[in-house]
Amino acid sequence: MSKFWFLLTIAAFARYAFAADNGLAITPQMGWNTWNHFGCDISEDTILSAAQAIVNYNLTRFGYEYVIMDDCWHAASRDNASGAPVADSTKFPNGIKDLSDKVHALGLKFGIYSSAGTYTCGGRFGSLGYEGIDAKTYAEWGVDYLKYDNCYNEGRAGTPLISYERYANMSRALNATGRPILYSMCNWGEDGPWNFAPNIANSWRISGDIMDNFDRYDDRCPCTSVIDCKLPGFHCAMARIIDFAAPVGQKAGHGHWNDLDMLEVGNGGMTFDEYVTHFSMWSILKSPLILGNDVTNMTNETLNIITNKAIIDINQDSNGSPANRLWKRSIDGGGDLSLWAGGLANNCYVVALLNTSPSSQTIDIEFSDVFFDQGKQAQSQTYTIYDLWQKDDSGSWGKNLGTVQGSFGNVSVG
Amino acid sequence: MSKFWFLLTIAAFARYAFAADNGLAITPQMGWNTWNHFGCDISEDTILSAAQAIVNYNLTRFGYEYVIMDDCWHAASRDNASGAPVADSTKFPNGIKDLSDKVHALGLKFGIYSSAGTYTCGGRFGSLGYEGIDAKTYAEWGVDYLKYDNCYNEGRAGTPLISYERYANMSRALNATGRPILYSMCNWGEDGPWNFAPNIANSWRISGDIMDNFDRYDDRCPCTSVIDCKLPGFHCAMARIIDFAAPVGQKAGHGHWNDLDMLEVGNGGMTFDEYVTHFSMWSILKSPLILGNDVTNMTNETLNIITNKAIIDINQDSNGSPANRLWKRSIDGGGDLSLWAGGLANNCYVVALLNTSPSSQTIDIEFSDVFFDQGKQAQSQTYTIYDLWQKDDSGSWGKNLGTVQGSFGNVSVG
Amino acid sequence: MSKFWFLLTIAAFARYAFAADNGLAITPQMGWNTWNHFGCDISEDTILSAAQAIVNYNLTRFGYEYVIMDDCWHAASRDNASGAPVADSTKFPNGIKDLSDKVHALGLKFGIYSSAGTYTCGGRFGSLGYEGIDAKTYAEWGVDYLKYDNCYNEGRAGTPLISYERYANMSRALNATGRPILYSMCNWGEDGPWNFAPNIANSWRISGDIMDNFDRYDDRCPCTSVIDCKLPGFHCAMARIIDFAAPVGQKAGHGHWNDLDMLEVGNGGMTFDEYVTHFSMWSILKSPLILGNDVTNMTNETLNIITNKAIIDINQDSNGSPANRLWKRSIDGGGDLSLWAGGLANNCYVVALLNTSPSSQTIDIEFSDVFFDQGKQAQSQTYTIYDLWQKDDSGSWGKNLGTVQGSFGNVSVG
Amino acid sequence: MSKFWFLLTIAAFARYAFAADNGLAITPQMGWNTWNHFGCDISEDTILSAAQAIVNYNLTRFGYEYVIMDDCWHAASRDNASGAPVADSTKFPNGIKDLSDKVHALGLKFGIYSSAGTYTCGGRFGSLGYEGIDAKTYAEWGVDYLKYDNCYNEGRAGTPLISYERYANMSRALNATGRPILYSMCNWGEDGPWNFAPNIANSWRISGDIMDNFDRYDDRCPCTSVIDCKLPGFHCAMARIIDFAAPVGQKAGHGHWNDLDMLEVGNGGMTFDEYVTHFSMWSILKSPLILGNDVTNMTNETLNIITNKAIIDINQDSNGSPANRLWKRSIDGGGDLSLWAGGLANNCYVVALLNTSPSSQTIDIEFSDVFFDQGKQAQSQTYTIYDLWQKDDSGSWGKNLGTVQGSFGNVSVG
Repeated sequence: MSKFWFLLTIAAFARYAFAADNGLAITPQMGWNTWNHFGCDISEDTILSAAQAIVNYNLTRFGYEYVIMDDCWHAASRDNASGAPVADSTKFPNGIKDLSDKVHALGLKFGIYSSAGTYTCGGRFGSLGYEGIDAKTYAEWGVDYLKYDNCYNEGRAGTPLISYERYANMSRALNATGRPILYSMCNWGEDGPWNFAPNIANSWRISGDIMDNFDRYDDRCPCTSVIDCKLPGFHCAMARIIDFAAPVGQKAGHGHWNDLDMLEVGNGGMTFDEYVTHFSMWSILKSPLILGNDVTNMTNETLNIITNKAIIDINQDSNGSPANRLWKRSIDGGGDLSLWAGGLANNCYVVALLNTSPSSQTIDIEFSDVFFDQGKQAQSQTYTIYDLWQKDDSGSWGKNLGTVQGSFGNVSVG
Repeated sequence: MSKFWFLLTIAAFARYAFAADNGLAITPQMGWNTWNHFGCDISEDTILSAAQAIVNYNLTRFGYEYVIMDDCWHAASRDNASGAPVADSTKFPNGIKDLSDKVHALGLKFGIYSSAGTYTCGGRFGSLGYEGIDAKTYAEWGVDYLKYDNCYNEGRAGTPLISYERYANMSRALNATGRPILYSMCNWGEDGPWNFAPNIANSWRISGDIMDNFDRYDDRCPCTSVIDCKLPGFHCAMARIIDFAAPVGQKAGHGHWNDLDMLEVGNGGMTFDEYVTHFSMWSILKSPLILGNDVTNMTNETLNIITNKAIIDINQDSNGSPANRLWKRSIDGGGDLSLWAGGLANNCYVVALLNTSPSSQTIDIEFSDVFFDQGKQAQSQTYTIYDLWQKDDSGSWGKNLGTVQGSFGNVSVG
Repeated sequence: MSKFWFLLTIAAFARYAFAADNGLAITPQMGWNTWNHFGCDISEDTILSAAQAIVNYNLTRFGYEYVIMDDCWHAASRDNASGAPVADSTKFPNGIKDLSDKVHALGLKFGIYSSAGTYTCGGRFGSLGYEGIDAKTYAEWGVDYLKYDNCYNEGRAGTPLISYERYANMSRALNATGRPILYSMCNWGEDGPWNFAPNIANSWRISGDIMDNFDRYDDRCPCTSVIDCKLPGFHCAMARIIDFAAPVGQKAGHGHWNDLDMLEVGNGGMTFDEYVTHFSMWSILKSPLILGNDVTNMTNETLNIITNKAIIDINQDSNGSPANRLWKRSIDGGGDLSLWAGGLANNCYVVALLNTSPSSQTIDIEFSDVFFDQGKQAQSQTYTIYDLWQKDDSGSWGKNLGTVQGSFGNVSVG
Repeated sequence: MSKFWFLLTIAAFARYAFAADNGLAITPQMGWNTWNHFGCDISEDTILSAAQAIVNYNLTRFGYEYVIMDDCWHAASRDNASGAPVADSTKFPNGIKDLSDKVHALGLKFGIYSSAGTYTCGGRFGSLGYEGIDAKTYAEWGVDYLKYDNCYNEGRAGTPLISYERYANMSRALNATGRPILYSMCNWGEDGPWNFAPNIANSWRISGDIMDNFDRYDDRCPCTSVIDCKLPGFHCAMARIIDFAAPVGQKAGHGHWNDLDMLEVGNGGMTFDEYVTHFSMWSILKSPLILGNDVTNMTNETLNIITNKAIIDINQDSNGSPANRLWKRSIDGGGDLSLWAGGLANNCYVVALLNTSPSSQTIDIEFSDVFFDQGKQAQSQTYTIYDLWQKDDSGSWGKNLGTVQGSFGNVSVG
């Protein structure tokens, strides 16, 4: 699990800038998606109940705004005459436009799912070759967000150019609708979307699907790195995705983010501390924060994690810089310890220590590491330190722990 | 070698679905092929004798139905005028149509072989550029199955798209005949057919050709993984192919299977226990079960293995889910121990323990591993357990060993 | 850090020759670039002040001639009517042509920067699809040098041919202007420019951007080799780039060089000895020597390094042969020791010993290693030896240390 | 170094067959080439002197027939009007046709060199885009053999298809001349020519250029395998090329061979025993045997090696099957020991034991390894054994050492 601090000083020199075309996801998108908890078993009610719960729990106040209907909303086939997509009339008796209107009426935005292939991953009709009519239909339905998957792509992968062209087709189709639709690419990191997608998409998945587990290796997620991984698979444990994310953080920025996959907080496969780590690391790596649990039925623990405003503020910080991993050290007995730090707006920094070993670890953390990027001056300053998982006197997250200089001494992480 | 159990409980949540176009191989195909035992030395008699033996031994009752004529059935060249394929008139004096009719008359189906290249692997004329006329001719001959190889492909490999296009050409040609012809791709896993082939083929080979040996490393099968292997080769030992199959099991399902290559059971290069392992693992990984021995001359041991109905039933289970490897542990002295489990229909599971080390191993197997995918509830249930390689009182495979809960304690595997 | 010697004897047999089209960079280019020190914070004054300093310090006498304006010189957009590139009128109130004239008036040459993508790395308009008008405009502006980057390339990478075509477009456009413009490719080594670029460019970067640090591993430069690296990144420590350069030295020669990236000497992240190593190794590997510090404000130490004429002469030697690494040995406690040697004109050789371990090392260096390429006769000759970092009686670099035969005995490197 | 034996029994079951189009190199080609000894320093005299020496030494009797003029025979440019290739008129005052006639008059065949690129490796004009006129001119000149290199290929590599098309262009052009011209591809193994070239070329190089050294690692030959090597380079030590060849032997056969590069026997960089190993291993791996020494000036040792008829007979054996490596074992102290065996015509086998460690090794060699491919019957037979590097009573190579069964006991290899 992790330790998190929040520090004050001067921001660093930014290497990459970028101007997004659709003006969306200036900070990482936040919302909720049906897949992780409900899979294919969705209906109008699933989505409206969740939307209502989001409102009831005041999650919108924290930034959660997109309600995303993932796979299996489809009828058996497209409309024969027009080729337009059609929803399953049993699950969605009032149609998608009606559903979207109701979601909008709750003050939320509405997202949909398709795949850049012949079929979706769930075997429904895909959008390959139907990008224009699908984007147009989504716009008519009032869709604000598209998660666009990679199944059954008919071999159209293997070089960045081949993947780019397939995904750019939908990007152009979405732009052509005139409606701002957040474009969330989900090609599992194939061919390096961090290289080719920054100006066609608002975010891109970097790996195979997340598994609701802390760090177990699973053969179905066989690659040891997302760089040139030829079988992203699924069942990728949470901490493995963090490890995957380390080298590609450099590629994210305003309007174009690395997507570490939807959150598992609240789904039951991890402990409270593990979910704290999960939510925190997703936050500082500037992943979209898309809830994946049943929001109509949450424990206080779950609610506490997903409404930690201090952590969310880091994710939504205007600087838009993912934290960088300063070092990673193998621990005898398995797992590793790693130090992460990132620059925020207003002369602030976030620092995290991640422990995936089975035992508690105690170390000193040197400012020469924490502020390696910022240089010697930053390394010798005095900082005010806040622990973002403790509450201050008013009950808000982020307790002032006093000041530090040179190092954090004797930090223990369980 | 392996231990096999069969358990009863509730099935898991399926990630991938799919609808095949030709309606074939809803469960993995079963049959017999000339290559492993006879190589190029085949004739009408080879095939008809085998077909007759399959009937005599009642193998059809167990599901073996395709009789497949592999390489070297060809005349020296195609028909000059039409370009149609022509059979060797010495080996097949009555032609292929006649042979096919005779096979059909025995209640069996008939398969043929070609290569997506200029030549077949045996140097006969290949189908590259002749897909249309070849598929049409096969249909006229009454062919029910095509094994389609990869030799002499004129460099048309290296990206999924290039390989896809070469193999999709034959898929479309077969579909265009109107005759249902099972399409068995054999491109040795190049460019990841598990990614690009699920909706053009009923099965795809994942590796170089099998060698009739348990686990010997051979330089002619040099890759350590089938993911992005650039030289699949041949002489791949049986247990190496099992290892290759672990990460790609996730890609198989109804109508589209990973093909671990034809069986060597009965060909003499392995012990009885090793062949038991071979047949069992092919079964639970949902590989096609294509016999490769001389079925006209079988020992009782061979016959016992290939007619274990309990094992075959797992292969043909309607759930269509390959077993997954839960863990793999290196053994001092070489080889490894691995645990595999898979969900079946009707609340059943199959569990196998594979030992490739030279010594006997004894361990506890925890239900937290076996039912990792199914979660905590499944891990705490009580199961009825059957050993599929023991016989019950009626002499059928699958002996009831009582119930288990929490773990299998002290399992020994020789 | 390194030890350097300079020896006298007969030159070796050259494997590769080449004729460059534009007649430039017969020896590696030398100059100064804004990026490493100033980043995006540049203006007319930045460049003119540096140019004036180069003249004042007499750096031209040592060969520094190109003054290169890196990223962020751009206006918000191209000229609407013509599509021609436009400079930021605040930073460059007199325009680029005027700036170029002033640089020329100081006896220097003027370089500019763009990217073979939709945007530059700093988010300004890129040249992809605008190669013709950009090259033409640069020529009109009196540009003598183009550094051509790789950001936002719309997926046009992944095979040598795709990258080649993108970069050859600009090469052809530059040639078409009729003005000799040195073409400095910066695609970070993707797809192996040492293979595809020798006759379209004068130099090519081999890795991600340099970091002003001796040898720290940084996750943002994740590849362990530049051969087939799919994420070159940035923050590549100096000694890591030396390691990257070892296998590709064979590909450089007159008019086509491996670019190890711009120098960090004087920027403060390394010690004096480390900068000596940096400058020396860049020199013997025949990298372009492009200063990256603030030349208007240099310490004597910095000045001493960048004006070591003996070292520069090796870089500019007419033989054009990068030094080769003869061996590399891991040192207990981390880092390694490596021996480098290269043939020069006039029967001379350069020899260097590089120590990246934390401790001092003492070894014998055998001539059977130093002159491995030259063979037995060269290994048994007597050589006059000069230490290029010591001064002779006249105060020039390169002190005669006497003669050696068979080996350098007991060499210590701190 | 190696031990070699020659055994008698029944041949194995062949996996791959093939029919070459030009009818050449049914067994691996033999001859002499200018490059390894003379590099660019060649002339009419170099070639004619060598040709005369080949005749004088009666090397033709052993099968050496091709006299190949490598790089640097070219004039500064092609013929302006026709585009046809032109030779250097100083080096070749009588032209190439005259030279070819003289070589033919000596009873030898004549080979030439070009590159599938803009330039040759030596910087002369290449054949890319000039395949037709070059092939036609070569045919007019009486050329019998083309070595076709890979330098300056303008990025046309990276997938098998791209490389195939570039090399197939010349193959087609050579066939179109009507003159049988042996086509020796030299693309250094890029993109796997063993996969794509068998029916367009008679041989293909598998690695970077050979270095006249037994086994020294050199950074200029950085790949650890030829499978998917992206920087073949040069300076590849002899024993490293043997290691490279092990997995690709399976791809060679009549008319299409793996080329391990030209021989260094006699060039001075290895000992007698090392050259014996070099020549023997090239032979049993069915590499073309192209001398690379100065045949006008040979020691008796060199002559003895290159005229060992027993070894040459194995290379030229009508079976055309490269030996296979049965095992490779690391030796403490560095290097390894490996066992190789191959089937020959007339029930014979060749067996070799290769030791690259610095010390002598003594082991038993089991027939279960030697005859692994042939199976149990072959493993239990009795064989007559000949040592091919000892002479029999008549002075011919191949001394009968008696019979063996089960194993070679206590074999020592120095």
